[in-house]
Amino acid sequence: MDRDVYLETKPLEEALRIWSEGIEARPLDAETVKVSDSIGRITATHVSARLSSPFYHSSAMDGYAVRFADTFGASETSPKHLKIGEDAVYMDTGDPIPEGFNAVVMIEDVNEADGYIEIISALTPWKNVRTVGEDIVQTELIVPENHRIRAVDTAAMLAGGLTEIKVRRKPVVAVIPTGSEIVEPGSELKVGDIIEFNSQMLGGLAREWGAEFVRMPIVPDDEKKIRDALLEAHKKADLIIINAGASAGSEDYTAKIIGELGEVLVHGVGIKPGKPTILGTIKGKPVIGAPGFPVSAYLSVVLFARPLIMKLQGLEPTEPPKIKALLSRHIASTLGQEEFLRMKLGRVGGKLIATPLGRGAGLMLSLVRADGIMRVPSMSEGIAAGTEVKVELMREPQDIENTVVFIGSHDNSLDLLANFLKKRHPKFSLSSAHVGSMGGLAALQKGEAHAAPTHLLDEETGEYNVPFIKRMLPERKIVLINLVHREQGLMVLNGNPKNIRTFKDLTRDNVTYINRQRGAGTRLLLDKCLKDEGISPLDINGYEREEYTHMAVASAIVSGVADAGLGVLSAANALGLDFIPVAKERYDIAIPAEFMDTEMMQALLEIIRDDKEFKDAVLSLGGYDVTDMGKVIYEG
Amino acid sequence: MDRDVYLETKPLEEALRIWSEGIEARPLDAETVKVSDSIGRITATHVSARLSSPFYHSSAMDGYAVRFADTFGASETSPKHLKIGEDAVYMDTGDPIPEGFNAVVMIEDVNEADGYIEIISALTPWKNVRTVGEDIVQTELIVPENHRIRAVDTAAMLAGGLTEIKVRRKPVVAVIPTGSEIVEPGSELKVGDIIEFNSQMLGGLAREWGAEFVRMPIVPDDEKKIRDALLEAHKKADLIIINAGASAGSEDYTAKIIGELGEVLVHGVGIKPGKPTILGTIKGKPVIGAPGFPVSAYLSVVLFARPLIMKLQGLEPTEPPKIKALLSRHIASTLGQEEFLRMKLGRVGGKLIATPLGRGAGLMLSLVRADGIMRVPSMSEGIAAGTEVKVELMREPQDIENTVVFIGSHDNSLDLLANFLKKRHPKFSLSSAHVGSMGGLAALQKGEAHAAPTHLLDEETGEYNVPFIKRMLPERKIVLINLVHREQGLMVLNGNPKNIRTFKDLTRDNVTYINRQRGAGTRLLLDKCLKDEGISPLDINGYEREEYTHMAVASAIVSGVADAGLGVLSAANALGLDFIPVAKERYDIAIPAEFMDTEMMQALLEIIRDDKEFKDAVLSLGGYDVTDMGKVIYEG
Repeated sequence: MDRDVYLETKPLEEALRIWSEGIEARPLDAETVKVSDSIGRITATHVSARLSSPFYHSSAMDGYAVRFADTFGASETSPKHLKIGEDAVYMDTGDPIPEGFNAVVMIEDVNEADGYIEIISALTPWKNVRTVGEDIVQTELIVPENHRIRAVDTAAMLAGGLTEIKVRRKPVVAVIPTGSEIVEPGSELKVGDIIEFNSQMLGGLAREWGAEFVRMPIVPDDEKKIRDALLEAHKKADLIIINAGASAGSEDYTAKIIGELGEVLVHGVGIKPGKPTILGTIKGKPVIGAPGFPVSAYLSVVLFARPLIMKLQGLEPTEPPKIKALLSRHIASTLGQEEFLRMKLGRVGGKLIATPLGRGAGLMLSLVRADGIMRVPSMSEGIAAGTEVKVELMREPQDIENTVVFIGSHDNSLDLLANFLKKRHPKFSLSSAHVGSMGGLAALQKGEAHAAPTHLLDEETGEYNVPFIKRMLPERKIVLINLVHREQGLMVLNGNPKNIRTFKDLTRDNVTYINRQRGAGTRLLLDKCLKDEGISPLDINGYEREEYTHMAVASAIVSGVADAGLGVLSAANALGLDFIPVAKERYDIAIPAEFMDTEMMQALLEIIRDDKEFKDAVLSLGGYDVTDMGKVIYEG
Repeated sequence: MDRDVYLETKPLEEALRIWSEGIEARPLDAETVKVSDSIGRITATHVSARLSSPFYHSSAMDGYAVRFADTFGASETSPKHLKIGEDAVYMDTGDPIPEGFNAVVMIEDVNEADGYIEIISALTPWKNVRTVGEDIVQTELIVPENHRIRAVDTAAMLAGGLTEIKVRRKPVVAVIPTGSEIVEPGSELKVGDIIEFNSQMLGGLAREWGAEFVRMPIVPDDEKKIRDALLEAHKKADLIIINAGASAGSEDYTAKIIGELGEVLVHGVGIKPGKPTILGTIKGKPVIGAPGFPVSAYLSVVLFARPLIMKLQGLEPTEPPKIKALLSRHIASTLGQEEFLRMKLGRVGGKLIATPLGRGAGLMLSLVRADGIMRVPSMSEGIAAGTEVKVELMREPQDIENTVVFIGSHDNSLDLLANFLKKRHPKFSLSSAHVGSMGGLAALQKGEAHAAPTHLLDEETGEYNVPFIKRMLPERKIVLINLVHREQGLMVLNGNPKNIRTFKDLTRDNVTYINRQRGAGTRLLLDKCLKDEGISPLDINGYEREEYTHMAVASAIVSGVADAGLGVLSAANALGLDFIPVAKERYDIAIPAEFMDTEMMQALLEIIRDDKEFKDAVLSLGGYDVTDMGKVIYEG
């Protein structure tokens, strides 16, 4: 098999230089649009007023236009009387001042009687008159070239006598999805199909940056068809993005065909994810070969398409806003590749804490969850926990300040809680990281979370959570609030084909178990049960294979990776699994007292305490008892 | 005349309370849209995955699918050989793992020969396999309710098996322009006409806040027609904005008719500008009567429509971002009214300086020029220069940091310079405040500007600028750079109907002069000329009437406010005036040395020194000599 290895992988900076030298990124031509359609567009020339505004002298008040000379010497003791219609003309605000008149007396300042007005103080010339050009003088600059037009700008342009202006044509970005395994969203799916969603992300981003997005039809891995699609896109677009299938094969086609039709400038960039990025030109037009995995594709367009789309509009690519935060955990790093990590951010007790999300290039949802991106330089050998790092923001700083940070155990009711918080209080968010109950209490220790959901059974006392809090957080005032009592049990395939009834069954040769990670309450529960029954973990196939959430365990069973796993009834219900009950346990939320009184925590607690709709939603998941929901279990 | 005075003017806070209690602002109903059309929309329910992604086990690498048990004990010394097609199946990245297989060995880690692959290390179960749900687990929350959808969210939704979702219907905002004097933009204009531009601003703002904008036809000041228009808008809109003509009369109609059709909640708000704002409801739908002057109308919708439009979308109205700045000059204030001042901001030598723009309610362009809004509380009697104040931002903080602040003399070439800076370097802006040459040097003294354009003739020495710099800025290192030599002269109407030839002519009874403000170099030039000829300023009609720019002086002459004024040839040319040359003068830019090396100043100086297109554009204005453009005149 003839494989193209990235013999020529270029460091990011060099790739950017080659890209900007290899393509022409001059602002696009102008097009004429109506002023009323121009909001958000970029001016292609400066816009100057064709008319003054106002273009005639007009009254700034309701009152009478007079000749100021007629008011000389007027006072309370010697008022002046002016004949209405001859020496005084009634004006509504905005009315034109008649020829020969040059001041307006306010209606409140005159007495009208017998066809005359009485004036008791003199006026200066042009008093209460909006003279020509008071707002805008003919020829005056309204907005310069390369300016993004706002609503107020359009109003000023109309006021200045313009109805049409020249703006930059929007760059057209064509996205070509390729891959024989790729199918349209909404298709009837069979194993092996991959839903095409990258083009929507890439084109949507291009739109967010001001471009027009043309989605080309999906092209199978066929040289001729890919060539035809590139040529077709070339006719329409200012920038072509061709998105490889996830397979290395289709990417190789792409580079080869771009090379034949034009020139490959770069194949392989020293970034992770995103290494297989291709940069090239076809007959003067720039082409980006975006890798197949979504995070790789995302990075390739953020790094290479965004600055180009800006320049084509006459805008200077700006740096994304950055924020400084403290790293919550050690990050290992690969020498020689600049890595882009998706990060969650949270403001906890004055400190901004940054926690890395999953690093996989295939994790689309990590881009949805991320608050920002951290760059790990190619020469870094890792970054220690507690280091101050810079994070490029993907959300508004305000949204991060308004986020309640939960770290700890996972339960499906937390998804519901996150949703109800946003539903009741749109400005607040709940971010929830699943590291297990012990990990949650450790996060409270380190000041990384506002709250830790926890369900830790103390083997000695049979008591939940409190002994652990006393042990791990002896110095802190903690309020422990119940969320639910929930049923834990063994999840097995619908119909229980392997006839699993007891923990003993897990030791059978034909049974594979799927475990939770160390420190998860559910894992401790398993260990306690095994100990009680005298079963060695070594006898269980798959004891060492760990997942981080109940749903991931359930998913592993549905898909045949494992035959059984311990988890909550709601997860089994969600994926249609059978469930063998094992224990009912208390699932609480531990909150350091100092975070109790914040507006966002109070909003959250109000939902837990008083929101019937939330309670009903939790009950509908199955396996929950909400009798104690919101009760304070322990305080100290 | 029956006039409605604002008997019941309410303080802003009370008006906001009455408004939010008097109207229903619940999130609008949901509508179903395609995921691919949903960017920017707000979710009306939470969105959960219908499918896992991937929904089958797939290869994360190019390589061979194997059974991990077959690789037990493989090492360099005892490699395992697996038969291709039976025990090893070739996989491209993304291919589904065949039934019974459970690990993938990377292509780089095998030798292929004679229909077998050779493996030299053991694999763990599911190594290099993307298991079902690795990215998204079926039923998992993708985004919550009330979430503004981004490109990445749409991709995750498609990946999670969704093609349509429920989003909030966009609030429809109908804007009705009223006033018999109002005409459509682009109409043939006659004196008394007012171009209708407010609706474009108000509707454009509503659009910027997420609403749909329906522009209703212009309605004359006619009770029945206004009533009909309100009822018509009521059918279509979730919020009706009726924009009064500038006249108090039409505003009174509006309140009366809203009262008849529904209820007037507030008529008159204690804000400046914006006092005549009307708030009401018609059959359950909110109505805002926005005042006629553009800045008043702007404030009325920012304060009352924006929070409502947010709530109708299920969003919480956010506070505009604020920034702290030092006030550059004293602000007088009126007790009992909360005033909203438009402000220019500039970062000068580490300090952020805020300078008020014109306060008139009719100054549309002040909204275009403004960087932010400062609120002067109703109980304030004024704010001293140097006070730290809060400014609500109308621009990105980055744009303010990238602004070169010029304070000083006005010349038409500065408009061109501002435009060329933006054209050549889109990220930089030039803001230019016109306070006269003396005012500019004073601003340098106080550290409020990066540069001061100046043309001050020293009567003693006949030298320009340098003596003033030495006198006013003895301690500062200043670089003085020439922009142009320019012709000053008396501007008069085309054809010179009053036959003005000399300064002596300005003392004639039938001649009115228009002057520049105290401290303007042009005013000093006039004073010098008058002194030379022994003319007393007291003998000149209009000597006391001041304008701040050459164009404003020219405009005053065009419109008949004055017969003559001293100014530059380019201003006379721009408005087609005749010009009687008086003097050629040097117009320089004084720059404190510490600002010379900033990137933005260098960008600006490059244009002044080397940009032929800029030079040509200045020459085309007329009256300029650019021989010394960019030359350093003085340094010290």
